[in-house]
Amino acid sequence: MMAKTTLGIFGLGTVGTGVVALLRDNPQFEIRAIAIRDRHKPRELELANIELTDDPFKLADHPDIEMLVEVAGGIDPAYEVIKRAISNGKHIVTANKELIAKHGPELFALANEHKVTIFFEAAVGGGIPLISTLQRGLQANRIARVAGIVNGTTNYILTKMEREQQSFADALREAQAAGYAEADPTDDVEGRDVVYKISILSSLAFQVPIEVEKIYRQGITQITDLDIKLANEFGYRIKMIGLAQPGEDNEQALDVRVHPMLVPRHHPLASVEGVNNAIFIKGSAVGEIMLYGPGAGRFPTASAVVGDIINIASALKLPDFAQYFQLPIRSEACEIFPIADTTNAYYIRLETHDTPGVIGTLGHAFGEHGVSLHSVTQKGVNSEGTATIVLLTHRVKEKQVQAALTQISAQATTKQIGVVLRVLI
Amino acid sequence: MMAKTTLGIFGLGTVGTGVVALLRDNPQFEIRAIAIRDRHKPRELELANIELTDDPFKLADHPDIEMLVEVAGGIDPAYEVIKRAISNGKHIVTANKELIAKHGPELFALANEHKVTIFFEAAVGGGIPLISTLQRGLQANRIARVAGIVNGTTNYILTKMEREQQSFADALREAQAAGYAEADPTDDVEGRDVVYKISILSSLAFQVPIEVEKIYRQGITQITDLDIKLANEFGYRIKMIGLAQPGEDNEQALDVRVHPMLVPRHHPLASVEGVNNAIFIKGSAVGEIMLYGPGAGRFPTASAVVGDIINIASALKLPDFAQYFQLPIRSEACEIFPIADTTNAYYIRLETHDTPGVIGTLGHAFGEHGVSLHSVTQKGVNSEGTATIVLLTHRVKEKQVQAALTQISAQATTKQIGVVLRVLI
Repeated sequence: MMAKTTLGIFGLGTVGTGVVALLRDNPQFEIRAIAIRDRHKPRELELANIELTDDPFKLADHPDIEMLVEVAGGIDPAYEVIKRAISNGKHIVTANKELIAKHGPELFALANEHKVTIFFEAAVGGGIPLISTLQRGLQANRIARVAGIVNGTTNYILTKMEREQQSFADALREAQAAGYAEADPTDDVEGRDVVYKISILSSLAFQVPIEVEKIYRQGITQITDLDIKLANEFGYRIKMIGLAQPGEDNEQALDVRVHPMLVPRHHPLASVEGVNNAIFIKGSAVGEIMLYGPGAGRFPTASAVVGDIINIASALKLPDFAQYFQLPIRSEACEIFPIADTTNAYYIRLETHDTPGVIGTLGHAFGEHGVSLHSVTQKGVNSEGTATIVLLTHRVKEKQVQAALTQISAQATTKQIGVVLRVLI
Repeated sequence: MMAKTTLGIFGLGTVGTGVVALLRDNPQFEIRAIAIRDRHKPRELELANIELTDDPFKLADHPDIEMLVEVAGGIDPAYEVIKRAISNGKHIVTANKELIAKHGPELFALANEHKVTIFFEAAVGGGIPLISTLQRGLQANRIARVAGIVNGTTNYILTKMEREQQSFADALREAQAAGYAEADPTDDVEGRDVVYKISILSSLAFQVPIEVEKIYRQGITQITDLDIKLANEFGYRIKMIGLAQPGEDNEQALDVRVHPMLVPRHHPLASVEGVNNAIFIKGSAVGEIMLYGPGAGRFPTASAVVGDIINIASALKLPDFAQYFQLPIRSEACEIFPIADTTNAYYIRLETHDTPGVIGTLGHAFGEHGVSLHSVTQKGVNSEGTATIVLLTHRVKEKQVQAALTQISAQATTKQIGVVLRVLI
């Protein structure tokens, strides 16, 4: 009989419960101990014969645990627990996007030093095999673009707003009622969750460390159902996108950012609906591929965690196998291409006074800053005399658009700049 | 300086040329020899310093080659060359779907015996990471279904027929002119190419050897633009599908087959257009995922071949690493679930004499065999008095439909059974 691989599991929330459920009947593994916050909370799982502790460091120090599975999330105490476990020679499987995004390079270096490995397929895109594809599937390629819908909450809200002509606030409320958005939805709707995920994906695609706090971020709270409707009329759907590509005219810098985008209707990403995720990758040899599926949830995420556990276990018997999974470490962080220097097409919605010549004034301001307009459409006037004007620009540098908008903000005819969205081109 | 990994390349057609182009500037590799059919044919590549031979067995016996890259295709002589190379301790990377589908288990056993490995990511779906996902990404899952659009030629033809209301013959001619179909298109349009590919995918998904000649196969030649139009009206698109799932009421047998299907418009596979491929996988934990991209072509396929080469090379320094990639070998082939016992919904187009009561006669025949109809639609009558009748059935066993159709064929009012297609449900 083969010896079982012994596991310690840190965290028994949604994902942890799924992991334990998938592993229970697998004769290859033995869960030695689980670290949980509250040992007296009733659990839906039978946990007899499993050591329970409220001190996760006990797993990191446990002499009979070969692999630490971290599904607790957050930085404190996961970061210190994992460092301790690595130093004690344990392999790591984690679903922790924030930890890998903020401390990945340091942890990988520590793992290399201790000849152990860190797998984190579950950190992005639930059970969709994104990480392994970027790590090992596309090595023959220079990556030209990674663009992902990697947050189910915002995609659910935007899909709801489109299908049912709902406001952002109503769609958010329904997402919360359906369990797809947290009581405090800030991390999702303001794009912080996507920042962690695109940081991980782009650090693998471009093999550079990335400082997450330098990533430009715009949330979806300003988007109205009118924007979604107008985008549709122009042939686009609005999606929350994490984007990474080499900087234009500066391949050394990485153009990585998180914001809603108008995605052309025929683009593969446009048809991703509800809580599904998808990642679109353009490689120099492979061309354009897309990986699609449920991006979160108990069992999709547990599928990735347990897949990692099985993959490590199948290699455990090999001497020095961790070398094979060594992550290339570059210590200096990658230069991030400034958002002002990026080139995009833009969708701009403005509220103006309904006075003659207002479109001429706008056109003049954009023209002065070299912003070439593709279309200008006035969308009705409300009872207070406010006209909604929607503009689509041609490709232009962000700073030119921002300069034009600064000038327009100061014009007497302008009431408000409603929203500025970029177009995926 | 690290020693270069030495390669022998067998085949210098479309894919082989792409592989050499991608590897040329990679300092990690040295192409020692290339086996080609005609040494005097002019080549677009500079091949100085590379040994050329018209005898591929020389690569298999070459003392300075660590890895044989087979991109020649076909069984003869690839099968014997690869066996010889394995016996000589060389690792194998191949893009050969027919070889893996027909001789995979034997070659894997031989490779295990000689402690070498065989990678074949390029055999299905070009550069889309299908093989690695099924081998290593979804190990925590029992697979409930694999359904793939894995033949670019037929998908191109069906897309053309739909977009431009073309006949099959016209769309095929255009596909040939555009280089997307061979002069003899039989292997593609009759589904043989898909048989090899679904055989490989399902043998990985369900971890069983499969006898390709037992796989049921229906081509796309009988499909008319009318069928495509009617399917659209009913909410479907017609796609050539390789399908594999556990047999209904008999999980020991595998229901694996190749035929065109009506795919519901909202299904992820429905939006796959042109020469693109996609594979849809339903797993017990992960749920439904789809991998999408260009399924053929020089660089997409070479991307997968070179990815395999890099992955093997990065493991070469590990002792006994081939163990990690050992394929589970089960010698007895899997029982194939008979097509007559499968359950499907059906789209049936009949040509009948335009006589009163013909729909009643049809309905009676289907009813006698327990086939419940979802809809019956008469689509006009031509100048020769032929009425086209289209039926959609509810879910029913194939043998009941076949029995009803046998009876209907014999009826005086029936001119011809035009086409019988299954619906993806």
